[in-house]
Amino acid sequence: MPNPLPALLDAQQPDYCLEQPFYADAGIFESDIERIFGRRWLLVDHVARIPAKGAWFLYEIAGESIIVVRDAGERVNAFFNVCRHRGSRVCLESAGHAARLVCPYHAWTYGLDGRLVGARKMSKDFDKQQFGLRPCAVQVVAGLIFINLSGAAAMDFTAARTAITPYLDLHGIAEAKIAARAMYGVAANWKLVMENFLECYHCLPAHPEYCSVNSIVKLIGDGSERASMEYLQAWERWKAASDPDLLAREVALSGPADQGLDPQHPYSIPHAHGAAHSGPVYAAMRTLIGEGYQTMSEAGRPVAPLMGRFRRYDGGKTSVSVDYFGRMTAANDYAVLFKFIPVSAQFTNFEIIWLVRGDAVAGQDYDLPRLQWLWHVTTTQDKTLAENNQRGVNSRAYRPGPYSDLEDTPARFVRWYLQQIDPRLGGA
Amino acid sequence: MPNPLPALLDAQQPDYCLEQPFYADAGIFESDIERIFGRRWLLVDHVARIPAKGAWFLYEIAGESIIVVRDAGERVNAFFNVCRHRGSRVCLESAGHAARLVCPYHAWTYGLDGRLVGARKMSKDFDKQQFGLRPCAVQVVAGLIFINLSGAAAMDFTAARTAITPYLDLHGIAEAKIAARAMYGVAANWKLVMENFLECYHCLPAHPEYCSVNSIVKLIGDGSERASMEYLQAWERWKAASDPDLLAREVALSGPADQGLDPQHPYSIPHAHGAAHSGPVYAAMRTLIGEGYQTMSEAGRPVAPLMGRFRRYDGGKTSVSVDYFGRMTAANDYAVLFKFIPVSAQFTNFEIIWLVRGDAVAGQDYDLPRLQWLWHVTTTQDKTLAENNQRGVNSRAYRPGPYSDLEDTPARFVRWYLQQIDPRLGGA
Amino acid sequence: MPNPLPALLDAQQPDYCLEQPFYADAGIFESDIERIFGRRWLLVDHVARIPAKGAWFLYEIAGESIIVVRDAGERVNAFFNVCRHRGSRVCLESAGHAARLVCPYHAWTYGLDGRLVGARKMSKDFDKQQFGLRPCAVQVVAGLIFINLSGAAAMDFTAARTAITPYLDLHGIAEAKIAARAMYGVAANWKLVMENFLECYHCLPAHPEYCSVNSIVKLIGDGSERASMEYLQAWERWKAASDPDLLAREVALSGPADQGLDPQHPYSIPHAHGAAHSGPVYAAMRTLIGEGYQTMSEAGRPVAPLMGRFRRYDGGKTSVSVDYFGRMTAANDYAVLFKFIPVSAQFTNFEIIWLVRGDAVAGQDYDLPRLQWLWHVTTTQDKTLAENNQRGVNSRAYRPGPYSDLEDTPARFVRWYLQQIDPRLGGA
Repeated sequence: MPNPLPALLDAQQPDYCLEQPFYADAGIFESDIERIFGRRWLLVDHVARIPAKGAWFLYEIAGESIIVVRDAGERVNAFFNVCRHRGSRVCLESAGHAARLVCPYHAWTYGLDGRLVGARKMSKDFDKQQFGLRPCAVQVVAGLIFINLSGAAAMDFTAARTAITPYLDLHGIAEAKIAARAMYGVAANWKLVMENFLECYHCLPAHPEYCSVNSIVKLIGDGSERASMEYLQAWERWKAASDPDLLAREVALSGPADQGLDPQHPYSIPHAHGAAHSGPVYAAMRTLIGEGYQTMSEAGRPVAPLMGRFRRYDGGKTSVSVDYFGRMTAANDYAVLFKFIPVSAQFTNFEIIWLVRGDAVAGQDYDLPRLQWLWHVTTTQDKTLAENNQRGVNSRAYRPGPYSDLEDTPARFVRWYLQQIDPRLGGA
Repeated sequence: MPNPLPALLDAQQPDYCLEQPFYADAGIFESDIERIFGRRWLLVDHVARIPAKGAWFLYEIAGESIIVVRDAGERVNAFFNVCRHRGSRVCLESAGHAARLVCPYHAWTYGLDGRLVGARKMSKDFDKQQFGLRPCAVQVVAGLIFINLSGAAAMDFTAARTAITPYLDLHGIAEAKIAARAMYGVAANWKLVMENFLECYHCLPAHPEYCSVNSIVKLIGDGSERASMEYLQAWERWKAASDPDLLAREVALSGPADQGLDPQHPYSIPHAHGAAHSGPVYAAMRTLIGEGYQTMSEAGRPVAPLMGRFRRYDGGKTSVSVDYFGRMTAANDYAVLFKFIPVSAQFTNFEIIWLVRGDAVAGQDYDLPRLQWLWHVTTTQDKTLAENNQRGVNSRAYRPGPYSDLEDTPARFVRWYLQQIDPRLGGA
Repeated sequence: MPNPLPALLDAQQPDYCLEQPFYADAGIFESDIERIFGRRWLLVDHVARIPAKGAWFLYEIAGESIIVVRDAGERVNAFFNVCRHRGSRVCLESAGHAARLVCPYHAWTYGLDGRLVGARKMSKDFDKQQFGLRPCAVQVVAGLIFINLSGAAAMDFTAARTAITPYLDLHGIAEAKIAARAMYGVAANWKLVMENFLECYHCLPAHPEYCSVNSIVKLIGDGSERASMEYLQAWERWKAASDPDLLAREVALSGPADQGLDPQHPYSIPHAHGAAHSGPVYAAMRTLIGEGYQTMSEAGRPVAPLMGRFRRYDGGKTSVSVDYFGRMTAANDYAVLFKFIPVSAQFTNFEIIWLVRGDAVAGQDYDLPRLQWLWHVTTTQDKTLAENNQRGVNSRAYRPGPYSDLEDTPARFVRWYLQQIDPRLGGA
């Protein structure tokens, strides 16, 4: 059977959602894993998960298991969780602590740097150096751990790192602690989960809580010229009131206007930096939540101590993304990391990690239900939306429809995606 | 890989059951769905399920979801449950009531006639008329709703409608109410479930309750010339005693002898009316239950009020079928609808709907356990038989065997089936 | 798609474990079933399971169901559990007793020899002799039932039978009773389960209980020249102390030294007798358990009455294997049968049957927890090891690694396996 991808790619209408096989087919899912998740940088966790030397956790994606482990000092390493002897999983729990990584089957033993340091009764000409754990590339940026499954061939991360660091520093992410985490299993293709995340056309019909907090959404939902004007005026008032000394120059410069972003679409990915295959697509921006809301909470009141360089609750929020799959949204008092973890063609894990200031104490400085409220409620709704989307997409009657004016972000994502998987475009 | 169907079709021995792939293979199942369930008329329910304008229910078949909804007056419409925007399911529950059908994702809104009447913030050149829900064809015949997934291309239903209407009118089906429904999930290919339904060779070994009610079965089981003669005499006695004014001429003419049916096989499909691809195959007949049995109940006594034009319990039963998949069997006091709903290559839902007179009151005029007894007991047994049949058919050792003299109905069904899926025969 | 097997076979490095598809791919699993399990002799049970004429049980393997039934006298027959009429399973329970095998669907009736003896209402030219149950070949060797799915084409069993009979007779297997049985479902390819069973490189890291009983394992685990010498000396002491009158000449001759076995590897399969496709590979040997251990029990004390020709607990154990999949290990007081039953590419049932002397009484002469302790504990650990092995092998990062010096048995098994499935080598 010839590769059906070129024919499918040619059939794809611009600014329409994808043809059925892109959302449903197991073979295309394998391509996605190889050409996208196998090549791009992936946000896997916050460094607070592995505070000391020898601490490790497993990052599971599409049937793969990656050991992320802290080596001496600041160094974080990542390896495929596959013994080089007969292939057993080396680490079996979701997280742990060890001086060395010992395979439970035949006790082959690896250092925290992945080198094979012990293997009993091998033949005389056995060369340990050839049998270290297979490595992933790792980057730690202001407390966030990114890995790249392609290892030494990983695309350069410098530009993305440089661009997002000031935003993370502003929020004190490196010094944060993990307050909570939650995994949402979604019976839908990862691209349906992603498109759902990228647009707010569905917010008015489907997310009353989210709309009550983020007043911009109501304006987007209305969409009249008057509503647009009101939002711009609110945004200007908020900008004028913000502390000029607080924000470093480069953060201020990355504001929506300066990035050519339409302020009506503050959650949009800015125009991609870099071409499709030359490096990560990244974006960072800062904008207001909703007038009257100090943070992203049910009543708008703070839910945790101020983080980073903030000295007051200023009603702003910061969004950072690297290659779509690794995203952070932060208010003054907490941040959330979002992870999109494909499992199979029609199943995706969506994980949220809540961060607070490193010295905050649960039950005293913050209360988990209040902290988690907005994103738990909203994500539970999105899970249902994406699953019903998948069910309909699986129908023989499904035909892609056109994106609305409020869906330019998924439309851009789809263009980016099609470039990534087009075998005729090559790629790293 | 070349299409294996022609080779398989050529290998098939006449009057033997089917080769393994027809019962087991996922690709052939897809062909079945496309060439049979995608083209033929399917019985989906009784109109009492949607009594008022805006009432709808979902009909689920082979991963598809169809919205069946009552529009103004008598009109019933059916649509694929797939939003034309990004493909979400529009209706999420199994049934409901709505003035308009609103997609829960982005609030695209459809009329009860399927037309798109609302879509926010689409581009200026967006043409709503191009994005109505994709329709199925619908026929309502004396209270029974039939749909055809091929929509405007559906084959003509006129002859079938004309033929079955008198039988349904005799039993007052249009005025009936739904007393109960039950879904039996059967881990077997739909054709094994169908063949099981079509023949009574297995009744003596496997259905003691069914045999006690339907005395003909015992005679079939015996099969001697004497038994055959006894049955014919009983049938003649029953016919002579039946009310000549009750039955319309066309119903009387449709009796077994007039249809060229062997009275030993009263459940048989008569010789198909119409060629393979030119229209539905249908049949209708009326015969006796068993001497001493007024209705199809455990003791033979009535279980509900008389329906339709009947003025006494006369011991007769009427069978109607349209294209194998939609079947009704009715005594004087209740009717059952049978639906064969393929789910996957080796799973079929078999649904039974019990109908009683429209003004009958549960607990007073009828008692559900007594009403459901015969078909619940018999179907539960058939489920086990079909599942064990599937297990054996899946064996590498399986080879089709010859049908017995009492299995002419599955033999005829198999010939019809092979015609439908033969790609060399074309078809509508 | 051309058959990928030759390319895979060519890619396979000698003395490395297998390439991923051999452990993971559904197509190769089908080849395994056809070329190995469909051709080799399989141990299915002990004759005590069917003590009287008409007693039967089902042997289930890879979706197949085989009826094993005792006919008149000593004769044991085996048939595919598929009715020759329309393919139903004939026997539905896991075991039973019947004068004839009657299909529950349409009552076709078979004799205990598989011949069709009853079929109602078939056409005049129907020939019952053409529709007997499809047979497997059967061999009963000193109480153990072996079957061969290829029926009349089965490879000759004479040499294997001759070789293993004295060992089984020594232990009185023919007169044993079944004390217990347990099925361990392992989510791993059958070859990973097999390789795990064949080597003891993993015993020291993973099986503390097994090591405490079988002292040789500790020596293997150490592997020093001194440890090796100590074991040889212990073995010589044990041999010298064993009863010369007890053991028949041919058993004594089959000791490890005489078979060219390395005494450090007492569980090894000896060099295969016969070429790849000309007959079963078999082996039998007798060696000591561990000094101080009278039997394979937690404290080394007897757990059941002496079996066979033994008059004292002599600390020895006997291992017998036929074609890898049928294995027995026996001490003086009990024997265990091991069965490897492939279910799908990544699932295997591993069954253990515990045998004791035929007249032993449960609760009086033996205690099940004590009897089952060693193999239950060890098998539960092996299940976990094999499942974690499968998970790692499924990774894109998996590459086969080299066998250690202590893994010559799986290395030899892998060579044998590759010969069996190589389509260029032909085969019976």
